[in-house]
Amino acid sequence: MREVAVIGVGQTRFGKRRDASLSELAVDALREALIDAGIENREVKFLSVGNFGLSSEDITPAVIAAEQVGMHGAALMRCEAACASGSAAFYAAWMAVSSGLYDLAVALGVEKMTEVETPTMIEILGRAGSYFWEFHDFGLTFPAYYALYATAHMKKFGTTEEDLALVAVKNHKYGARNPKAQFQNEITVEDVLSSRMIAWPLKLYDCCPISDGAAAVVLASKDKVRELGIDAPVWVKGVGVSSDTSTMGNRPDFLGLRSSREASKIAYKMARVEPKDIEVAEVHDCFTIAEILAYEDLGFCKKGEGAKLIRQGETEIGGRIPVNVDGGLKAKGHPLGATGISMIAELTKQLREEVEPNRQAPLRRYLALAHNVGGTGQYCYVTILGR
Amino acid sequence: MREVAVIGVGQTRFGKRRDASLSELAVDALREALIDAGIENREVKFLSVGNFGLSSEDITPAVIAAEQVGMHGAALMRCEAACASGSAAFYAAWMAVSSGLYDLAVALGVEKMTEVETPTMIEILGRAGSYFWEFHDFGLTFPAYYALYATAHMKKFGTTEEDLALVAVKNHKYGARNPKAQFQNEITVEDVLSSRMIAWPLKLYDCCPISDGAAAVVLASKDKVRELGIDAPVWVKGVGVSSDTSTMGNRPDFLGLRSSREASKIAYKMARVEPKDIEVAEVHDCFTIAEILAYEDLGFCKKGEGAKLIRQGETEIGGRIPVNVDGGLKAKGHPLGATGISMIAELTKQLREEVEPNRQAPLRRYLALAHNVGGTGQYCYVTILGR
Repeated sequence: MREVAVIGVGQTRFGKRRDASLSELAVDALREALIDAGIENREVKFLSVGNFGLSSEDITPAVIAAEQVGMHGAALMRCEAACASGSAAFYAAWMAVSSGLYDLAVALGVEKMTEVETPTMIEILGRAGSYFWEFHDFGLTFPAYYALYATAHMKKFGTTEEDLALVAVKNHKYGARNPKAQFQNEITVEDVLSSRMIAWPLKLYDCCPISDGAAAVVLASKDKVRELGIDAPVWVKGVGVSSDTSTMGNRPDFLGLRSSREASKIAYKMARVEPKDIEVAEVHDCFTIAEILAYEDLGFCKKGEGAKLIRQGETEIGGRIPVNVDGGLKAKGHPLGATGISMIAELTKQLREEVEPNRQAPLRRYLALAHNVGGTGQYCYVTILGR
Repeated sequence: MREVAVIGVGQTRFGKRRDASLSELAVDALREALIDAGIENREVKFLSVGNFGLSSEDITPAVIAAEQVGMHGAALMRCEAACASGSAAFYAAWMAVSSGLYDLAVALGVEKMTEVETPTMIEILGRAGSYFWEFHDFGLTFPAYYALYATAHMKKFGTTEEDLALVAVKNHKYGARNPKAQFQNEITVEDVLSSRMIAWPLKLYDCCPISDGAAAVVLASKDKVRELGIDAPVWVKGVGVSSDTSTMGNRPDFLGLRSSREASKIAYKMARVEPKDIEVAEVHDCFTIAEILAYEDLGFCKKGEGAKLIRQGETEIGGRIPVNVDGGLKAKGHPLGATGISMIAELTKQLREEVEPNRQAPLRRYLALAHNVGGTGQYCYVTILGR
């Protein structure tokens, strides 16, 4: 396998983007990534597009994105892995370069979720679970799936509603420093606790929003990096993928995500690093409990000690392992197909020390980790980047 | 890049499969492919699933398929490339093995299209074109897109309605010999010409049906082939992918598909073979005109001479290059996500000389080609197999 570098990244502002169509969002992200990489659209012969779909009238998003940015003719596919669709597209583009097939590849993630009414979107998302049983017959929606994890974690490990709130508070704090975040306002624990109940113990502010947005990354082989004269690019050190049943009733417990543990194990092994080596991370905080589970499943702390990490400020800048210092899904937003690519884009900028100074993680070993979950762990993609 | 072999294939019967759910179809194809390869489900660590979606209530088909067949935990993604979704999944699995990431990978294609009413399905398919302009504003449906190609070809090259009908007659002839085909009845030119007009000059019998079905292939690295003791497997010799605008008005002409020409050029180059070396082919005959275009775009004859090929029987068994001798999309059926994988499955069996004797292509060099188009050439995947 050939080494692969991230040589360009781009991302639109996330949020309710009534001002831009799906293809306009795609083009904005793609153009930024191409300029960042210093390459022309015509040089790109492989494009993968992460998009969950079902919320936009455009049912061939890869085709329209490729056309709008002048890449039609390229090898093209759409990748879907529920909320990890962006990471699946990244994985495909990474394989295209690491296999030796292409010297340049672009992965784009894009989602337009606010075109449909919110209750419809909630229904669509709920169907990403076990459709025939747990969604249809028992009425579980997405917040309810994660509420099962929250209550189990609270019962077993003493995690509290305040602990969950702290995750939202932290992520809003950094979202307020990120001009591309959907929510750029700070909030308090009290704001979270007094927000509308969604699925106990998860309240409105424990949940990520419904978002529009796009992100893109340009990948290159080592030869291409040299040819372009890029110094110290960001390298893809390890990628791990795993999956799990969508049927909650078939899972061994609700204390963590098996696919997160498996995917990170594969990625750590490939990168030859350990959890303690990671200096900044993006984790999948679709709900506050999900971030706490991720701390544990990724090995940033022992199982059951996730709440302690957030309580002690260890996942803020200045702590042991800054997490989601771009606002995370919670405050930056979660346009499904874009999220995984946006994580890679953010970490690339972190490793280049190019983000806003008040949210830049201090680096010594220059190692970062992205963790993107599809559904409630039906998919998990973990990527380790280094410089 | 590592060499990759097809070591197992499986396919369900295509058709109106009211007797089987999406996951049951998936499981039937997967199980057959695993048995054919002589491996266990637990050995598979990479699964890609080709599925167009939008016609089934299951919106995470990759997850349910993986779970049903006992592969959850594997690296997993769904690939979509409109009617070439199966080939996109094949491409992803091929990259997973050729890159050195996995020694075994499975590509599954599955589609359940008959759950929705036919007019709704026709609308969904039409939206795979240029949605906002040519579908929505001008009312072009999928048969109408291809009718533009048919009329242009007739005007420029003198291709006739009878020539188009001959494609349907040939493909039904072989469908009648394929127990997995949706239509197993022979038809006459008169049947085609007198069938209901859909979009002039295309009549009902010029169009492929709406189908349910699944197909799966197991891919392995050279090392794995040796380890399993497989003699003379079928090798993936070359793969080419290209794409094109979905806006008909932006295409240079309607005489052929640019993406077919580009994709096949890449595949021929990788396989180091020429069109004349191919001894049996599966081409994307979603409409009869599409097969004639494919003859020309793939280089089986010169541009404009496709009709001559079918008239002279050159694409039947005994002719120069037998095409779609499993019935093709026209008679075997076209469950979108399954089609591309089914082509690889059929050609693998052809190269192993394992199909029904009355539709076995005579082989000397053992080279086969699969051509799978998404939309009206928005995507094209070409795969060359050899033994």
